[in-house]
Amino acid sequence: MASESLRDRALAYHAAAPAGKVTVVPSKPCATQADLTLAYTPGVAEPVREIAGDPEKAYDYTAKGNLVAVISNGTAVLGLGKVGALAGKPVMEGKAVLFKRFADIDAFDIEVEARDAEHLIDVIAAIAPGFGGINLEDIAAPDCFRVERALQERLDIPVFHDDQHGTAVIVAAALRNALELQEKDLGKAKIAIVGAGAAGLAIAGILKKLGAEHCYLSDVHGVLHQGRQDLSEWHRPHAMAPDGWTLADMIADADVLIGVSVKGAIPLELLASLAPRPVLFALANPDPEVDPWRARELRPDAIIATGRSDLPNQVNNALGFPFLFRGALDVRARAINAEMLAAAVEALASLARSEVPEELYAAYDLAPGTLQFGPEYIIPKPLDPRLRSVVATAVAQAARDSGVARR
Amino acid sequence: MASESLRDRALAYHAAAPAGKVTVVPSKPCATQADLTLAYTPGVAEPVREIAGDPEKAYDYTAKGNLVAVISNGTAVLGLGKVGALAGKPVMEGKAVLFKRFADIDAFDIEVEARDAEHLIDVIAAIAPGFGGINLEDIAAPDCFRVERALQERLDIPVFHDDQHGTAVIVAAALRNALELQEKDLGKAKIAIVGAGAAGLAIAGILKKLGAEHCYLSDVHGVLHQGRQDLSEWHRPHAMAPDGWTLADMIADADVLIGVSVKGAIPLELLASLAPRPVLFALANPDPEVDPWRARELRPDAIIATGRSDLPNQVNNALGFPFLFRGALDVRARAINAEMLAAAVEALASLARSEVPEELYAAYDLAPGTLQFGPEYIIPKPLDPRLRSVVATAVAQAARDSGVARR
Repeated sequence: MASESLRDRALAYHAAAPAGKVTVVPSKPCATQADLTLAYTPGVAEPVREIAGDPEKAYDYTAKGNLVAVISNGTAVLGLGKVGALAGKPVMEGKAVLFKRFADIDAFDIEVEARDAEHLIDVIAAIAPGFGGINLEDIAAPDCFRVERALQERLDIPVFHDDQHGTAVIVAAALRNALELQEKDLGKAKIAIVGAGAAGLAIAGILKKLGAEHCYLSDVHGVLHQGRQDLSEWHRPHAMAPDGWTLADMIADADVLIGVSVKGAIPLELLASLAPRPVLFALANPDPEVDPWRARELRPDAIIATGRSDLPNQVNNALGFPFLFRGALDVRARAINAEMLAAAVEALASLARSEVPEELYAAYDLAPGTLQFGPEYIIPKPLDPRLRSVVATAVAQAARDSGVARR
Repeated sequence: MASESLRDRALAYHAAAPAGKVTVVPSKPCATQADLTLAYTPGVAEPVREIAGDPEKAYDYTAKGNLVAVISNGTAVLGLGKVGALAGKPVMEGKAVLFKRFADIDAFDIEVEARDAEHLIDVIAAIAPGFGGINLEDIAAPDCFRVERALQERLDIPVFHDDQHGTAVIVAAALRNALELQEKDLGKAKIAIVGAGAAGLAIAGILKKLGAEHCYLSDVHGVLHQGRQDLSEWHRPHAMAPDGWTLADMIADADVLIGVSVKGAIPLELLASLAPRPVLFALANPDPEVDPWRARELRPDAIIATGRSDLPNQVNNALGFPFLFRGALDVRARAINAEMLAAAVEALASLARSEVPEELYAAYDLAPGTLQFGPEYIIPKPLDPRLRSVVATAVAQAARDSGVARR
């Protein structure tokens, strides 16, 4: 088995009967005729009448309240790009598995063959009533921004694009701790973000909300500044660099360098120009923007995080979306808003600063005591059993405090 | 407990935690970090690449092949009418429960808030790629005909409106046996159908395909004939009655009287005019078109069926759709066609003529030997454990023989 390639093992895992990764099963007794008269006719008419009279009762009598739709149009799947709606299905099923595994949320994947952003919005809005929340996934920028905002305006349930805000929350939490360790202030730090897609713009957005004042981004065409004519309405508010800045200018003296782009997007030689005690997050999967082992050699004073599970400080979205939705669903929230995101950031960051439970070392096959808050442990591990209660509780409270909770 | 009303018990059943009736769970191991590297990144990229290269591989690597969407717009829910998409959710979840309970099919309910038939078609077509089949449910006539046909033309998976063809298959099977017992011939029989909605038209359609030559329908405006100006393109082919016929004319001397309408739609006094040894199916739920006990008194020579579980000969859709889809999915069928429906009719009818297994008496709390082919047992019981293999096998074979099977 050990000699099998990841490819072979992954395909065998998905193909083993039953094919795929999710199954839909009854949650109530349905063995006998008596059961079925409650589950179906004639008994089922009763909850139908109740909900027809008051739509909010769908939370009481159907699966809606614990149900999230994982929806993609297949235009930006993993690092593979526009593979099409159906080809994205293994990823969406995988996301549903993570929702259940980490937060006991029923998540169902829907792959939408959409003609354009407007069509995608229309289709999602039409099927939304039966769900308690919508997790948008792997939708290419800039459509993802428009789709999310339009749905948030139309629907009274949380609509959350994980590639934006999920990533941004984890990055912000990790950065909060990294800056504390490096004894730097978010407001004063020079922050350079390489990559201005869904994740890059959302990271810039949340960091500014949390107090960052010197945040710059670049994309494949160069650094974002107001002189560029090719920027969308979503990019323009983040185009704060001086005209004429090169990537080297943006990175020089930066306290924080975040890559949310592709392998090679951060030239190794530019790392020397970073400020002392920098923070470097190179998050492209599976291959970071810059080789993290060589980066470590070059900048022993840096705190480094990647998306890789085989290195310390894995920035992994599984730390965020299950618990954001858990908290939102627990209070039947109408939205996942900025206050809830900020609460998740703080909860995640504080969890990494607290002592980890013994069982976690076993889960990761680590020697006891090796997970101590510090440069190599700035963010909790995805299998940390405390995540659910700590993060979801904070998110639910923020929903209540900000007035979007139904209960 | 026994004194609780059905209403109380049904609401308590639906509200018990977890609310609703279906849950989505992982079908593969997902406990460890190693599992998750196969279920999600990086392993999940492999099936994505495979499906991007060949969409048919979605059957191998995702849940698609055993997955049916139960879809409604909430315009004709049970006998309650247009309750809205969300209020139909308990029924659609219930349908999903039946799919799993009877045929081990993963079924997921989707409630569509559609502006009109075209919109409904567009939305369903957009979300169809991830499913192995589409079960349309509780969509009002005549939209249901247009929606089904348009989707059948656009999609390469089965699209099946259960209120039409599910009902029609069970009725045809029951009628085949009833006519044999009454020693009548389908081709020569005068057949009167009261109700010309989804079920009525589909019953007329399948009976004609099976050889019926004298089939008449009525709706709330009277008997369908070519002189009527108010008939849709879907009704017109079935408007075969002479101009001027009344309901009494249609029922007089009828060998077969089928009600797929509402309580009271068949006047008791007209039963006297039926031909000798008639067949009477009064299928409105929960209250048949004519009181079945009084009908029995008036016509002791009749074979009577209803939709009620507390009377003999229950015409219940659970006898059909689970096994039609089971057979279709087993061969990855591109459609559920007329040949497959006919195969299901024959399989259901023959099952009722064979000896029932002992365990079935226990399931229904019946004295052994009481289920013998005859006027009070013309159709199998829903909990008959042989249904799955007998009906699904026949349907799958018909799919192969008619060229719509992928394997």
